[in-house]
Amino acid sequence: MNYRLRIQYDGTRYKGWQRQQNSDMTIQGKIEAVLSKLFGKETIIDGAGRTDAGVHALEQIANVHFSEEDKCTTDEMKEYLNEYLPEDIRILAVNKAGERFHSRLNAIGKEYCYHVMKADCDCVFNRKYSYKVDTELDIDAMRKAASYLEGTHDFYSFCSKASKKKSTVRTIQMIQIEETQTEITFTYKGNGFLYNMVRILTGTLLEVGQGKRKPEDMTLILQKLDRRAAGETAPAKGLFLQKVFYDC
Amino acid sequence: MNYRLRIQYDGTRYKGWQRQQNSDMTIQGKIEAVLSKLFGKETIIDGAGRTDAGVHALEQIANVHFSEEDKCTTDEMKEYLNEYLPEDIRILAVNKAGERFHSRLNAIGKEYCYHVMKADCDCVFNRKYSYKVDTELDIDAMRKAASYLEGTHDFYSFCSKASKKKSTVRTIQMIQIEETQTEITFTYKGNGFLYNMVRILTGTLLEVGQGKRKPEDMTLILQKLDRRAAGETAPAKGLFLQKVFYDC
Repeated sequence: MNYRLRIQYDGTRYKGWQRQQNSDMTIQGKIEAVLSKLFGKETIIDGAGRTDAGVHALEQIANVHFSEEDKCTTDEMKEYLNEYLPEDIRILAVNKAGERFHSRLNAIGKEYCYHVMKADCDCVFNRKYSYKVDTELDIDAMRKAASYLEGTHDFYSFCSKASKKKSTVRTIQMIQIEETQTEITFTYKGNGFLYNMVRILTGTLLEVGQGKRKPEDMTLILQKLDRRAAGETAPAKGLFLQKVFYDC
Repeated sequence: MNYRLRIQYDGTRYKGWQRQQNSDMTIQGKIEAVLSKLFGKETIIDGAGRTDAGVHALEQIANVHFSEEDKCTTDEMKEYLNEYLPEDIRILAVNKAGERFHSRLNAIGKEYCYHVMKADCDCVFNRKYSYKVDTELDIDAMRKAASYLEGTHDFYSFCSKASKKKSTVRTIQMIQIEETQTEITFTYKGNGFLYNMVRILTGTLLEVGQGKRKPEDMTLILQKLDRRAAGETAPAKGLFLQKVFYDC
């Protein structure tokens, strides 16, 4: 049987999603350890997105195969996981999935949201989940810049440690920039995102908002195929994996 | 000169607002330590509400007297405080106040909000700021019970360590119970609240919501003038001081 897990986590304390040999402070590692205990054998899960150290997830999807279907129900599996996982990692749902379902390979899109706390807003309760920017930001300029980034492009310039061998072409269906009294949120929906891509996109858009770059510069940055052409990588703590899309 | 401070804090790590001789982990103590450094002499502040250990504040008000007005502006005072205070305590504003202004004695009312996370809602990001209740809650019954508690009553039964010498009569102008997909919030507005009063009111209302008590029982609890007649004290982490009211 193949199980699909819907997972939420506060990434503050962790070294990211992906299991590491030298640290037990990864989300994948924590979940695998509890499942291995439940199933009585070493268990490996696949996650839809490999979030970086410090990045959060409102919804991450993973799947796990386990042959002894009679051993526990999906409800029991969820309950057991939430009992033994640390409280900053929660399993929101466990469902049976088709045998061929793979959380990462079958994902047709993802949505990320980046939270920026506005100048003069000191919210104690969001401090671990947003990036404080102490300068005024020109929302219209950032929206215009974002429109150059939407669509299908080679995002090589917006990727840390890009490999020349693998394709860095991705499609961003939408970049939505919204403003409230206290924060500005950047929502990105696309068919896939490269390593650090959302954080570099955000860092670059923030530089446009601060008047350091022009909206039109985005085209040139894309064309250069050079990481140094784009802006700073925005800090991890403002970033949330929000949703993973499947066509099934 | 008399200064009025608007303060926000995450109470999770602290032993409450009030300064203690044996601990430096109080909000008042932290702020006084920084002000004493700034002013170059031991400084004492007065807070509007003495929040318990673990209770948060969206808005707490304090005032502080300092004679050497020329030494710094209100903006400089705010900046200095935020630089040296821990990041879970923030000064939202510093304003000059009338010489006779006293944050606690002049307060004519306060608003508290208690957050309950509903059964089946596991929100990682609210876990430190809400109390998870794993049973279904009857909102209508809780609203009916709340209506018996609004108004002017002797709230002796709803106070921990009440003194027979001091009046325990208070006026609650409003108890509002609101429900969203993930949580239930209890908002209390009144002219003053006794020690643990909001948490005992909430604990008692939750017992009504769980069917353990009837809404009409509230009248009897008030009449008994006995702490044992009321319900459990709800945990501190769900409680926020939201606003302090003044008529000036």
